[in-house]
Amino acid sequence: MEPSQLNFRHRINGENLIIAVVQDHNTGEVLMVAYMNQEAVEKTLKTGLAHYWSTSRKKIWLKGESSGHLQKLISVKLDCDLDTMLLQVEQEGGVCHEGYYSCFFRDMSLEEGHEVKIVGDKVFEPQKIYGDK
Amino acid sequence: MEPSQLNFRHRINGENLIIAVVQDHNTGEVLMVAYMNQEAVEKTLKTGLAHYWSTSRKKIWLKGESSGHLQKLISVKLDCDLDTMLLQVEQEGGVCHEGYYSCFFRDMSLEEGHEVKIVGDKVFEPQKIYGDK
Repeated sequence: MEPSQLNFRHRINGENLIIAVVQDHNTGEVLMVAYMNQEAVEKTLKTGLAHYWSTSRKKIWLKGESSGHLQKLISVKLDCDLDTMLLQVEQEGGVCHEGYYSCFFRDMSLEEGHEVKIVGDKVFEPQKIYGDK
Repeated sequence: MEPSQLNFRHRINGENLIIAVVQDHNTGEVLMVAYMNQEAVEKTLKTGLAHYWSTSRKKIWLKGESSGHLQKLISVKLDCDLDTMLLQVEQEGGVCHEGYYSCFFRDMSLEEGHEVKIVGDKVFEPQKIYGDK
């Protein structure tokens, strides 16, 4: 199957996209979610490193290009309607710009009030990686 | 935190949405991805059963309403920018309308040609659940 056969049905700011869900291939932990256009899929498959489409900056980005926290592709799964790709990766460092291993570092209680607690592992200091803003 | 404080930034067909990633709470297997509007989040938290927003039918749906394959909410994680929710669930039957336990039942090879193979478990016969179309 060629990347062009995927279903880029998620149209955001004029770009046709699929959703990418990223999972740690060893532990199954879900790390992040991002969008990909066709070129991002092609670059990901060609290089073996995850590339995404930034809907705010309107450009392709290599995950880890500034932090060094690259995502090495181990395997790819496709969903039934071909509009979402599951990337199973080996994650360098941590995935979240806030310094956590996963972007899903907060638990939301199911009880009334829905208290939110940090439950994830902080693995780096953002200002050491990205500098002061 | 109230559902209204989430970042419904994914605007599709005039509706403001977050992305929901659904994971088997026991095995960590990723099962499906869907969108939720604020009402779908509220109904999910209130009932403990996953509800989504259908971008094609433009209505809320209770996952499993026709198949009986409900998703019982065990825990919820939020991502760093609050525009994606990870639902960790106990899945009745199978999640995919094609009869597989997960919608991500196909593996895409990383080799040239990107051969696609079915690797998921088929757990029910769609026509027995949904009838002939």
